This record gives sequence, structure tokens and C-alpha cells, in this order.
Amino acid sequence: MIQHPIYTASNQQQQLMELTTRLVSVILFLLVIRVGCSASPHHWRKKRVGEPCKKLVFYFHDIIYNGHNGKNATSAIVGTPAWGNRTILAGHNHFGDVVVFDDPITLDNNLHSPPVGRAQGFYIYDKKDIFTAWLGFSFVFNSTQLRGTINFAGADPLMNKTRDISVIGGTGDFFMTRGVATLSTDAFEGEVYFRLRADINLFECW
Amino acid sequence: MIQHPIYTASNQQQQLMELTTRLVSVILFLLVIRVGCSASPHHWRKKRVGEPCKKLVFYFHDIIYNGHNGKNATSAIVGTPAWGNRTILAGHNHFGDVVVFDDPITLDNNLHSPPVGRAQGFYIYDKKDIFTAWLGFSFVFNSTQLRGTINFAGADPLMNKTRDISVIGGTGDFFMTRGVATLSTDAFEGEVYFRLRADINLFECW
Amino acid sequence: MIQHPIYTASNQQQQLMELTTRLVSVILFLLVIRVGCSASPHHWRKKRVGEPCKKLVFYFHDIIYNGHNGKNATSAIVGTPAWGNRTILAGHNHFGDVVVFDDPITLDNNLHSPPVGRAQGFYIYDKKDIFTAWLGFSFVFNSTQLRGTINFAGADPLMNKTRDISVIGGTGDFFMTRGVATLSTDAFEGEVYFRLRADINLFECW
Repeated sequence: MIQHPIYTASNQQQQLMELTTRLVSVILFLLVIRVGCSASPHHWRKKRVGEPCKKLVFYFHDIIYNGHNGKNATSAIVGTPAWGNRTILAGHNHFGDVVVFDDPITLDNNLHSPPVGRAQGFYIYDKKDIFTAWLGFSFVFNSTQLRGTINFAGADPLMNKTRDISVIGGTGDFFMTRGVATLSTDAFEGEVYFRLRADINLFECW
Repeated sequence: MIQHPIYTASNQQQQLMELTTRLVSVILFLLVIRVGCSASPHHWRKKRVGEPCKKLVFYFHDIIYNGHNGKNATSAIVGTPAWGNRTILAGHNHFGDVVVFDDPITLDNNLHSPPVGRAQGFYIYDKKDIFTAWLGFSFVFNSTQLRGTINFAGADPLMNKTRDISVIGGTGDFFMTRGVATLSTDAFEGEVYFRLRADINLFECW
Repeated sequence: MIQHPIYTASNQQQQLMELTTRLVSVILFLLVIRVGCSASPHHWRKKRVGEPCKKLVFYFHDIIYNGHNGKNATSAIVGTPAWGNRTILAGHNHFGDVVVFDDPITLDNNLHSPPVGRAQGFYIYDKKDIFTAWLGFSFVFNSTQLRGTINFAGADPLMNKTRDISVIGGTGDFFMTRGVATLSTDAFEGEVYFRLRADINLFECW
């Protein structure tokens, strides 16, 4: 059967029209998806978590000054409440004790491994009825492998198996970074030595 | 009137062409708008303020240790300048006094309301000629409703009706958050009790 | 030669098809490029450094209380390790000394220039074998030119010519800002006066 030319053309145009419509739909769909995830006024606010842009694991080692270990000590009590003193951590779960530290950072859990940097800052025991601390400190790196600092702040309810603190900034290799560090107590020996493992997950890298 | 088939086809094609062109224009326009608002090199820097992604209001209550209120006290002086002591806030507007706290957080301004979390950290009085403090602390939540921490730092010129400090990070329900908290002194009783209202406006939510 | 209508229509449609295909390709290409540069799951993480959105230079001046200069002093020792006291910076490179300060900020390096704000917070000497400190403080501005705060935290290995700390947040004119401040010791006189220059580079402005 011979088709009328108009009908034929119209039929082809219809197919073309459908194809175009479908393509345009796909494009609009892609746009809508992207608008939904990133370009709305909500752009700056609702962010996707996703995978960290950098993951790091370190250990750091704290030997607190107790009046007898001046040579080895890496930290010291520098503030206490009225009922405390600066060579013995205070009662009431050390509430109010302020400790300044300069702890070696190692890649494994061995205190005697070569340090790759220093953890420097302070912690404050801040609860009377259970051990809990507040931390403000930096990881300071100054080697050919790593150079720069990562700055941390946050609550450390240290009786929990793991606890999260904030990575609030960084410099050098860690310029402007942000993230979360998960701390866990890897060892705890009397009231003189403890070792923390820090699993650092950075979610903003520059 | 009977149209010539070619003319008809061409006419329909023209309409189709116009339709396609118009659709493509709209798409390109959308793309251009989006490039303008988000994908330039300025993307990371100039950000729009807009509405907060989360708004929260809490109260927290500080009862400072004065030598007699050990049971109720939620905070204690742990550092003072040479002229101070740790049971009475020092002269010169308490300049130099370091206070560690573990304060209950409530949803209303009643000290005896069930606490929904703890405000833990420290403040330092840091000005000789007027009351002013510097704050480093966390809101710690651990209930079925709220879990995680919000970390704060900043200057607190506490004689001002309101003052803004920074939300520098968060964990759990407040993972990676940033924002501004507006503090106001809701009550102040002698030198033993004060209550702060914190209006937290988060502008980065993940 | 007169073309058969069908053939003609078909030919035109083919051209239209090609045009559409080409346009759609361009659009998809644009989309792909933008996906690559900004909208992937990496969007929030890998950020371009580029130029700061704001650059500021200030000086601040610290006069530490030594028992005799109560009138002029802008800072005081408020915590020390067991071997220290609060009118003389401790041995071992002042390890453990906590100093609270309220220092004038000036636009040039002259202590007597009119202050444009105050640097308020604390520093902690935190290393036994070299001078190193950890800083938590704010620049507080309250003039017609500048209003708001910039909050800082980080390690200050002060024997280095320059060292970087983090801008962790801000309020007012510096709402939500982030960046890096490069500190350098502009003057150091005995153990009583020092002057720091702060080159502030902000990379997130709102």
C-alpha cells in the first residue's frame, strides 16, 4: 500500500517529536535531580555525607606528671578546683583538673615507635560523677611526609568505647579541613599513662 | 484549500524546530542560571545567608562552687591569677578566673525541669574593667530524642543583652554542623547561679 | 529536478534530527562537565583554594602581669604546673603555664596606636624543650567600621618565623567565616611584652 506523503511525513515528524520530547525529559529530569541535591537555596546547608575525602589513623600517648616522673612525663596538671592539687588528679572523678599535654603521635600502638608528630593542647575533666573530659588540641606534623596541623575540639566522655570530637580546621597539608575524629582508649595504666587511638575522617578537603 | 504536501511537511517541521529551539533555550537558560549561582570559582567563598537549616533553643544552668555548695555546684574555679583564689571569683571583674562546668540543659527556663543534655566545658573571665568571658564547650545529648554533640567557641561579652558565639562543629545528630549561637543571660543570682538561653541557628547541616 | 515530497520531508527531518542531536549533545556535555567539577559526591569535599575572599592584617600586644605591672598588664598567668607560680613564667620553657589575655588590637605595630578591637582568650605553653603554645581566642570588634568577632584556635610553635592557626568561625561582619591566620612575632621584649602580627586570610565568607 502506498502511503500518502503527508501522512508519512507527519508520522516521521511524530517519531522525531517523541524522540525530542523523550530527550528533553531526560535532560529536565537530570536537571531536577541536580537541583534537588545541590543548587537550590538549600545548597549551602543540606550536605550529603558520603565517604570521607581523607581517612587517617594515629595513636597518641599521654604520661601525666605525678611528682616523680618529670623526665618521661608528657603532660601536667596546671589547674585544679579548690579541693585538688597539681601532682595527684583530684577526687570527684578529677572534676576541674586542667591538664596540658605535648604527646608523641605514632602510627601504631607502641609508645616507643618513632613519633610522626605531636598532639599538643589541653584537656579538662568536667564531670563529678563519671570520668568525662573536654579537649582542645592540635596534631602538629613537621616531617617530609606530613606538614601542617589538624585542630580538634569537643567533649570526650572517656568511659564510652568510642566518642566523636570535631575537626574544626587545619593548616598546611590539612588546609581548611573539617571532619570528625573518633577517639577510643587503647590503653589505660593506673592514673599515669593512657593511649588514645584517633580515627580521623575528613569530609572537607581543599 | 488543499496544501502542497511539501509545504505542509516543512510547516510542521518548522513548528517542531521552533518547539525544540524554545525547549533548548529554556534548558540553556536554566544551566546559565545555575552556573551563575553555584559553579563559579567563587562557589566556595561567597555564600548566601538565607534561613538556618535548623533552629534550636535551650537553657543551661550554672551553679558555681563557693566552698559551701559542693552538692549542688555544677562548676568550679580551677585557675585564677596570682591575686585570686578558687572559692571566690577574683576582683577586677574576675579577670583570669578559669571555670570548668558541667551544667544541665533544659528546654525551658526552670532549673528543675528534666535535663535533656549537659553543657560541658570551660569559661574564662578575660577583662579587667568589665565582665567578659571566653567560652569553649559542648552541648552533649544522649537520649532517644537527641544524640550527639554541638561544639561552641567564642567571646561572651556577658553584659550585652545578646552576644553571638560560633558553632564550630558537631557529631551524631549534629554531624559536621556549623552556625551561630546567640546567648542571653536569662537569670543571674548573686555570684553563684546564672542561667543562659542559647538560640542556636545552624547554617550548615549534613 | 523535482524531489519527491517524502524524500524532501525525510531529508529536512534528518537535518532537524541532526540539529537536535547536536544541541542535546552540547547540553549533555555541559552537564557532564559540571558534574565533574561540582555536583558529584565529591562536591562537598574537594574544594579549590583560590584567592581569599577577605584579607586582614592586625597587630596585637600582650603585656603579661609580673607582680609589679598591674596597671598596664593585659594578661596574667592563671594556671601553672606544680613547679610554677603565677607571677613568673615557669621553667621548662614555661610548660604548663596558662595565660588569659585581653590585648589591644592595632592596625600598625605601635602599642600606642588607637586600638580597633580586643584580642581575648588564652594561651597555654605546652612543650618542655622549646617555646610552643596553644591558642584559643577571639578578635572582638565593636566600632562603626567593624563589628563582630573572629574566632581562632590552633598550635603556635612560636619560635618559627611564621605559623598558621585556624579561623574556626565568626559572627557579625565575620558571620560564619573560616580561614587561616598566619602569626609572626613582631616584637619580643624580655618576658613581659610581645607583639604578634596576624595576617588573616578568609576563604569562606557569607
